[in-house]
This record gives sequence, C-alpha cells and structure tokens, in this order.
Amino acid sequence: MANKQHDVPDIVVGRLPIYLRALSSMLAAGKQYTSSHELAVWLGISSTQIRKDLSHFGEFGKQGTGYSVIGLHDQLRQILHLDREWPLIVVGAGNIGNAVASYTGFARRGFRVVAVFDNDPVKISSLVGSFTVRSNSEIPAFTRANRVRHAMIAVPAQFAQEVADLLVASGILSILNYAPINLSVPDPVHVEYIDPVLHLQKMTYYLV
Amino acid sequence: MANKQHDVPDIVVGRLPIYLRALSSMLAAGKQYTSSHELAVWLGISSTQIRKDLSHFGEFGKQGTGYSVIGLHDQLRQILHLDREWPLIVVGAGNIGNAVASYTGFARRGFRVVAVFDNDPVKISSLVGSFTVRSNSEIPAFTRANRVRHAMIAVPAQFAQEVADLLVASGILSILNYAPINLSVPDPVHVEYIDPVLHLQKMTYYLV
Repeated sequence: MANKQHDVPDIVVGRLPIYLRALSSMLAAGKQYTSSHELAVWLGISSTQIRKDLSHFGEFGKQGTGYSVIGLHDQLRQILHLDREWPLIVVGAGNIGNAVASYTGFARRGFRVVAVFDNDPVKISSLVGSFTVRSNSEIPAFTRANRVRHAMIAVPAQFAQEVADLLVASGILSILNYAPINLSVPDPVHVEYIDPVLHLQKMTYYLV
Repeated sequence: MANKQHDVPDIVVGRLPIYLRALSSMLAAGKQYTSSHELAVWLGISSTQIRKDLSHFGEFGKQGTGYSVIGLHDQLRQILHLDREWPLIVVGAGNIGNAVASYTGFARRGFRVVAVFDNDPVKISSLVGSFTVRSNSEIPAFTRANRVRHAMIAVPAQFAQEVADLLVASGILSILNYAPINLSVPDPVHVEYIDPVLHLQKMTYYLV
C-alpha cells in the first residue's frame, strides 16, 4: 500500500493495530504497566522494533516503569483514529458476508456494520444477521447519506473489481477485500486483502 | 514467524503465494509470458523487490522474453510444496467455521477441508457445509489417522489457546487462527492470523 501523505512507513502503521490488540488484552486482564520486552514476548516482534515503531509518534514509555497500558492503548487508538465508531458496509451476502455481518467483534474495536448489499435478486430483501440485504444499486446513495468510508467486499472474484469501482465512485476510502484477486483503485483509496489460502500456502513452505 | 531451518527471510516466503496467485490469474487469462515489471504493476510491489525475492530460489527469467507464466507458476507451486493436496481441519462450527468449511476456493490452491470439529454438544453431529461436525475429543485420532498438518481455529478468543494446545499435541504444524488473540505454540509449529479488524484499523490511520 502506497504511503504518500504520511512519513511513517506503511509496515509500521500495520503493526500499530497489533500493539493495540495486545494492550486491550492486557487492559482486560487488569494489567497497569508493560514494557517493550513484555510486548515482544507476547507478539514475537523484537523489543527494538517495537520501541522504534512507537518512536515515530513521540515519547511513550518512562525509564524504569515502562508503558502505562491504558495510556499507550488510548494514544494508539487516537493515532489510528479509533476514538470514534466508523460505519462499515458489507457487499456480498454469501457465506463470508454472512459471517462478517454477524461478527460481534467489530464494535469494541472501532467499527459497526450498518448495511449489507448484494446484486442477486434472490438475496435482496432476505435477512443476513440482523440486516435486510439491499441492492448494490443503493450503495452510492447509502454511503453518501451515512458518510460511510469503509467497505468489505465478499463477492466472487470475477465481480470484485466492478464492485470496487462502484465503491470508489460512492466515496469509500478503505476496502477490505475477501475476494482472492488484486484490485486496482485510485490513489486516496486503500485496499487490504484477506485470503486465508495465502497464509496456508506460506506455512506450507516450512513443511516437509 | 521465526525462520530457523531455512535461509530465506520469512517476509519473502510470505510474498511467494501472492506471486503465485497473480500467475494463476495470468494463466487463466491465457497469458504466456510476463515480466517483473508487469507483476509489479499488478501487485503494487516493486519490480526490484520481485526479482530479488525470486533470486533466492534460482534463475527464472530470460533476458528479453521475461518469465514463462506456467514455468514460474509451477516452480512456485513446487517451492511452496503445493504440488499436492493438503488435508485441512476446521475447529469451530460457528459463522466463520461455516464460511470456511463451505468455501470452494481451497481445492484449486492446494488444500481440502476434511473435517469440522466443535466442543458444543448442540453443534456436534449437526451439518456444516457437507461435514458432520465431530467432537474436539476426536481431533488427535483423526489428525493422526489422516496425516493432517493444517488446521484453522475459528472458536471464540477465550478458547483459542486451549484448542491450539490440543492441535499441537495432535501433530498439527500449521495453524491459521481466526480468533483475535495471539497464540503461543512451540517451535516447529507455525501460526498465521486472520483478523479483519487489524486491516480496517490500519486503513483508518490514513483517513481523516
């Protein structure tokens, strides 16, 4: 993912949510302080890397006491713009669309699914989780009216690019793509990919 | 992910499946030759990086004609040990377990779901996709009898570590974890993570 407007490397930005997730677990466990060494053990990322990543955003830890868990947690939430709730739409009401629309883990972490779309007449108006599936043709008006910036694509690979084009034209800026295909989007728009097979294939390299 | 037995950096190994996916699309489109420059445009990875990654595994391209699509495709499949089909089990018969057990995209890419497990008496013996859900207690015998090395964890976060421990004790070497929590596994075992929220959070950094 290109990173033109900011001077923090994209790969560093990608690790911040991982730190945030660990800090949330620590908070839930009632932990008050942590250190780059403890985070390193939790996450399998070196403590030097963690300190270097965080140093892009200022001074966080104190010599001797380390990081305040809630302090670092809240600052990371702010840096990632997660100190508010972002509406999120799902395009594609198949198995994956169903699973993400029903997933209860978004809310605590900054996102809320607000609508599910599909272009299959059989699926439109059916119920997916607690959502009545809407037609893809409603996407532009819906996203504008609700100031939606985030979308998930959960349609078959051959339709993913046309859905992405429609989303971009509708003002979406962040696309999480579950279709196993690379998407082409114009510059202010970001795409991330979820493809379980890539992970399985990578691990298989180490077998045999 | 630690990489002790091989001298290729883990991050390079992680890009090979991305190259393979692009080459599969090219093959399907009837393309015979490609170049690091063309792959670079498709993937948003620099051509220098692509050539450097591939050079870890030998000489692939020819000056002038570039890469044979099928040649590079087949060599990557071999390097990743995907020139065979790997059995895969799913633990957790909820929404995500359902979606992955019903996903038809594994087979062409080296994997086949062979069983779905859960520890909820209500779910055991119910049908998920074309699978009758088995009890978690059957995992050790099943994986040994079927020489299963790959598993997906799709259970709530609080149960993920105990499931991982059971999988490791049952001979599983590659775990794809959908639970939003870091797992601790002993050394020959690899874990990869799928957490859609991490991707959404990363992209949200670039908004506002």
